[in-house]
Amino acid sequence: MSLPELSLLGIAITIIYTSQGSYGITEPLQAALGFSLIGFISTNYLIPKLSSSFIKIGLYGKDLSKPNKPVIPESLGSVAATSYLFVMFFFIPFLFIKYLVTNTTGGGNRDDGITQIRDSDLDRFPHDKLAGYLSAILCLESTVLLGIADDLFDIRWRHKFFLPAIAAIPLLIVYYVDFGITHVLIPKFLESWFPQGQTTIELGWLYYIYMSSVAIFCPNSINILAGVNGLEVGQSIIIALLILINDLIFLVSGSFPARESHLFSICLIIPFLGVSLALLKFNWWPSKVFVGDTYCYFAGMVFAIVGILGHFSKTLLLFFIPQIFNFIYSLPQLINSIPCPRHRLPKFNPEDGLMYPSMVDYTQPTTKQLKPWITQTLELLSILKLVKLEKDIKTGRIIKNSNFTLINLILVWFGPLREDKLTLIILGLQFLIGVFAIFIRHTIGPWVFGYDNLWLTNII
Amino acid sequence: MSLPELSLLGIAITIIYTSQGSYGITEPLQAALGFSLIGFISTNYLIPKLSSSFIKIGLYGKDLSKPNKPVIPESLGSVAATSYLFVMFFFIPFLFIKYLVTNTTGGGNRDDGITQIRDSDLDRFPHDKLAGYLSAILCLESTVLLGIADDLFDIRWRHKFFLPAIAAIPLLIVYYVDFGITHVLIPKFLESWFPQGQTTIELGWLYYIYMSSVAIFCPNSINILAGVNGLEVGQSIIIALLILINDLIFLVSGSFPARESHLFSICLIIPFLGVSLALLKFNWWPSKVFVGDTYCYFAGMVFAIVGILGHFSKTLLLFFIPQIFNFIYSLPQLINSIPCPRHRLPKFNPEDGLMYPSMVDYTQPTTKQLKPWITQTLELLSILKLVKLEKDIKTGRIIKNSNFTLINLILVWFGPLREDKLTLIILGLQFLIGVFAIFIRHTIGPWVFGYDNLWLTNII
Repeated sequence: MSLPELSLLGIAITIIYTSQGSYGITEPLQAALGFSLIGFISTNYLIPKLSSSFIKIGLYGKDLSKPNKPVIPESLGSVAATSYLFVMFFFIPFLFIKYLVTNTTGGGNRDDGITQIRDSDLDRFPHDKLAGYLSAILCLESTVLLGIADDLFDIRWRHKFFLPAIAAIPLLIVYYVDFGITHVLIPKFLESWFPQGQTTIELGWLYYIYMSSVAIFCPNSINILAGVNGLEVGQSIIIALLILINDLIFLVSGSFPARESHLFSICLIIPFLGVSLALLKFNWWPSKVFVGDTYCYFAGMVFAIVGILGHFSKTLLLFFIPQIFNFIYSLPQLINSIPCPRHRLPKFNPEDGLMYPSMVDYTQPTTKQLKPWITQTLELLSILKLVKLEKDIKTGRIIKNSNFTLINLILVWFGPLREDKLTLIILGLQFLIGVFAIFIRHTIGPWVFGYDNLWLTNII
Repeated sequence: MSLPELSLLGIAITIIYTSQGSYGITEPLQAALGFSLIGFISTNYLIPKLSSSFIKIGLYGKDLSKPNKPVIPESLGSVAATSYLFVMFFFIPFLFIKYLVTNTTGGGNRDDGITQIRDSDLDRFPHDKLAGYLSAILCLESTVLLGIADDLFDIRWRHKFFLPAIAAIPLLIVYYVDFGITHVLIPKFLESWFPQGQTTIELGWLYYIYMSSVAIFCPNSINILAGVNGLEVGQSIIIALLILINDLIFLVSGSFPARESHLFSICLIIPFLGVSLALLKFNWWPSKVFVGDTYCYFAGMVFAIVGILGHFSKTLLLFFIPQIFNFIYSLPQLINSIPCPRHRLPKFNPEDGLMYPSMVDYTQPTTKQLKPWITQTLELLSILKLVKLEKDIKTGRIIKNSNFTLINLILVWFGPLREDKLTLIILGLQFLIGVFAIFIRHTIGPWVFGYDNLWLTNII
């Protein structure tokens, strides 16, 4: 380790050490910052050390958007994820009230015991939340394990889509044994449909299906909006920042139980930012490493977990609007109404070093021709600036259209762009939409749903 | 899945389902059997499915003890380990009393709640032991993660030796936050050295060093006694059986807290036997798959965990006597008093298909010659039948000696042997020594230590 790294480590340990005995929310927040720094240092130290080993065992890929298509180590996100897991282990004693066994008859038996007294309502988390926290880490570790399997074995799409649901099993099972609440509040605008006085609805096992869906949705959305240097990590950092902003709003003006669950979320998100920023350093244009599916799954699962355990999964979905748009926008090609080539990444032009939208080319004999009504729809979308068309000058026939991905659409609007500018625009867009969503969430949301746990509390 | 597999799965589910509401220890035991069966089915189903994928990504090795040195997939133990982890997730609701949240102010807050009532003192585990269980699974999952890293990257010996201690971090940290007892009972024969009336001694952080040492010892011992078809899994199954026998003795005649901790151990061991037996089916001579370091670490860590959480780690070490002997016996070569070749595996003779002890050959110019006093020691060991020597007929000089490993020693005693017979003899020896150790533990042990938690209880 270099001297600056060692000094940074010293600072991190000091931050953590001095957090003990601080008053109120300062204690977990300060410790979270310290551990985030340690996660950053560890990831930053390990990635260059391990890169050549990854290449040696065949984990590498070509960066097609560079002049000489360099070979770059792949799946280095697993290093960031593993750093995160170990940081979160060491975080435990700073996060939870200790249970003191005062009497044991042996064999690990906890006959009598007391929990340490909390100085204020928020200086550490109650000991009985430890099982939930451990289930979250178990879920993340399973995600990393399955992610590594995916990176190694290239699992088929229809299988890998469900991997996050398998990884979420420990989270859901501990939720069942340790908490088990499966009713949700009825939004105000739906109340008239229910018997008078009923404010909640029991979802039962449907609630577990809902949680699994969140766990499938978040990791896959990040995995799909990918393929440009820095985009996977970048969007994850933006979403983490949005969650953090929302959490801080609750911390400042929320009531007690909501404050606690959002402080919990902050404590998971801040160390995540630490390891992700270190990864971004190496993954930013021009990338020295690729992150791999492991990181996308891991990042998505961190968000799913804070949303589920913090009971704000509806708000969470608002931060995925660009990802949701990307999915809906892709549908015409996914269902093959418009031909879908194997790769839809933007095209790199080595002459000017810029990225151009990639196109479906109907002059190729292998490309399926369009039905008339789809041609008309394409014309309409072109007027709305939602697709770029190229026409035969003589016949006016469409000979090319841009591929239906958000990345290509950004290039249609703002392109051609250098790769890092392209990433920056997508990230900026994600951030702006997210901030707007937070604003809507706390203004129009309460009016529609009849409550806002900034002042009142709710279940989801 | 084939029809027999499906019927077996049906039986497993029936066993688990009917365990609910059983009385006393029957409930967790019956569920453990059911989940063990599911672990067996899953491992047995997945290993042949995944073998070719393992070879494809470079995880394979040559079986040097076969006539044509076939290429065999390596690291398939990770499949057994992963099956175990997921089985243990689903086991949770059948193992722990549910905590029922009766009132929540939202945001995941457990304002009021009750734990389900237990029918008897042993039908399920108290809810407050859940965190310890989750930390055990976390520790195992970290072990698998680091084991896979080792199998992929071939980490150096001096580094990999400490990997299990890193994987044990979650176990130790949760022990600190959730239980934290670090005093041990003073053995009777040492009591006179302590102030009168003092029966325990506070070890403080030394106790954590002790637990780490157990976590380092068990996985590495299994990893070192290896290299013959079926030996890694075989010895793990024997150790698991010995732990099971010891647990059952406590279950039948122990007092309450010891019974509970040994029931806990049984619940971890029985599913372990399920996945291991399926793995053995493929790893037994002639092996269709190799198990890899992942399995050795995983198995060793299962034993370390039940020893630590069940507070019987001293007894546990008795079941590792052959492994401890193997280590001490290897020392002359490990410290290079006697030349240590790169591989010390027994030699396969393709003519008769039998295994012979491998030898250090002093007629080779590269082999270091022996000092006189070591020659004399070798002569003595040879008389004690602890080494095989080959001498020059004319000069009487030692020209060869067998390598110092337990495997070679068995061949010196009983060889030459076919590979499976060799494994069987080592396993038989391990079992007999273990059973004898259990006998000593419960007869001479109480006399030396002044108690036996068959009747009384103790801490370690």
